[in-house]
Amino acid sequence: MEQLILALDFGGTKHTAALLARGERSWRAHERVFSPPRADANYDIKAMLSLARQLLQGARPSAIGVSFGGPVDYQNGVVRLSHHVPGWENTPLKARLEAEFGAPASVDNDANVAALGEHRFGAGRGFNSLFYMTVSTGVGGGWVLNGSPWRGWESMAGEIGHTVVDPNGPYCLCGKRGCVERLASGVYMAQDARQRLAEGSAPPGGGHILLDLAGGDPDAIRGQTLSAAAAKGDSLAWEILQRGARALGAGIGNTANLINPHLFILGGGVTKAGERNWEVIRQTARATALPEVHFQIVPAALGDDAPLWGAVALAEDCLD
Amino acid sequence: MEQLILALDFGGTKHTAALLARGERSWRAHERVFSPPRADANYDIKAMLSLARQLLQGARPSAIGVSFGGPVDYQNGVVRLSHHVPGWENTPLKARLEAEFGAPASVDNDANVAALGEHRFGAGRGFNSLFYMTVSTGVGGGWVLNGSPWRGWESMAGEIGHTVVDPNGPYCLCGKRGCVERLASGVYMAQDARQRLAEGSAPPGGGHILLDLAGGDPDAIRGQTLSAAAAKGDSLAWEILQRGARALGAGIGNTANLINPHLFILGGGVTKAGERNWEVIRQTARATALPEVHFQIVPAALGDDAPLWGAVALAEDCLD
Repeated sequence: MEQLILALDFGGTKHTAALLARGERSWRAHERVFSPPRADANYDIKAMLSLARQLLQGARPSAIGVSFGGPVDYQNGVVRLSHHVPGWENTPLKARLEAEFGAPASVDNDANVAALGEHRFGAGRGFNSLFYMTVSTGVGGGWVLNGSPWRGWESMAGEIGHTVVDPNGPYCLCGKRGCVERLASGVYMAQDARQRLAEGSAPPGGGHILLDLAGGDPDAIRGQTLSAAAAKGDSLAWEILQRGARALGAGIGNTANLINPHLFILGGGVTKAGERNWEVIRQTARATALPEVHFQIVPAALGDDAPLWGAVALAEDCLD
Repeated sequence: MEQLILALDFGGTKHTAALLARGERSWRAHERVFSPPRADANYDIKAMLSLARQLLQGARPSAIGVSFGGPVDYQNGVVRLSHHVPGWENTPLKARLEAEFGAPASVDNDANVAALGEHRFGAGRGFNSLFYMTVSTGVGGGWVLNGSPWRGWESMAGEIGHTVVDPNGPYCLCGKRGCVERLASGVYMAQDARQRLAEGSAPPGGGHILLDLAGGDPDAIRGQTLSAAAAKGDSLAWEILQRGARALGAGIGNTANLINPHLFILGGGVTKAGERNWEVIRQTARATALPEVHFQIVPAALGDDAPLWGAVALAEDCLD
């Protein structure tokens, strides 16, 4: 008899549910809803349950895998908190879902789950050890070591975003200076661009294309605006992107020296910043790692669905 | 019938062999020899074999564990090279020992082996995940994750010494700037002290105690001279040690964020640099790690015998 797998992805503001039978590699159903501003945990859980019931149409899933956009106590299946949505503190999401659907559930944070998804179904297939990084609004990461997720002793592993690569760099909200996220995340790079424009400290001729692409409004600058402007030759945008790419490369090189994984997979907006940007990341990583430490750096294959595919892997592991 | 275990430690210039029966926790025999200058791999192997035969007195070991001071291909038991002794390139040490003694052998590099030794018999007992660092002439490290050594996909994991903590720092022989080893190893800190004395750039009143302790000869300054001088109030020595301690702390904090191990164990000369030095390491590590990332930092328990005890663990694992 076929075993239905329910995969759930709680993002910050968008929630996705998908359904397939065990062993299948395409979705039978796949639905997404967006939370209104001021939604809380309770609202989000109800919206997700409703979405899941709609997909299941009365069928019972054999297992449920869940990706959550925030820290999770994996062992107990308890969400620690959300940095975006109030009310998630210490929510026993695994127990709640198991009671609701009468099936085993497994819950982990999105970076770990995406790493597992890429390992099982994406760019990491066949690699016994890998580090998955997502670089978009923030910078997060997840490990697969010896073919299994490595979560750390308190489920906190993978925080490459808050490793320091330049102790004299700018301050991050985390309180440190020059951590990878401060230098390489879309939000911070856009903030840096706005500040350079406001100060009038752009390099000669730089910033015009960037501002044009933002419709003349510095507040409209995003990570992708920087990528687009750099591609068109804007020197300010390129300077900021390049600094971010160097920070990522240094973080990757340090990580390679420490753990010697076979593969690094990069997901998120950074993968769309062009070949020149990739080259800076690769060169810096190469120069930071010891000559004897080898690795590959490749783009993620599963895109926005990586956490959902990882949720499928989590669910399948419940059935073994 | 009792099973004899032969534990071998090939250091740079000193080689140790020890013998015990499986399950025993004290040595039946323990011998050390020093290599003359200009010794090569062939000389060292012969010296070690002779030492081992002397210990065994005709008995046959049931298993052999080996710690080697340099990179090792663990899977195949092949020494890649020694950075100190010529002729070790691609030496099949495991095969050589197995042929010699008719028993299974397991060979790994000293940092991995010491980590395993501290995990099985020392400061890391009962911890499921730990990072062991040795800070003396150089800075190396080894992992135990999920209770087993994590060596990396090409046996290169643990190189915290060559992670960069200050991209504007001084150049290391590895070609990078501001890596942990460049800032925190005994050899480099002594070199920095000599340079500061030569330049006359010591802080006011600093350097005198240091120079006195070195018998007036800057070339006689070692890591332990710095520790002793700092303990007596030498401001130059303390400045250099403190910079090293900050580098170690930053390296540990970054590592905690990436892998979230339960425990860090510090071995080597650094553990003798006094409580004030430990405090700087701990504070910097704490400030670099995210608030949610917890860990302990403790001194190694097995001292110079850590690799030898790790070799016992390697040998015992051959027997399971």
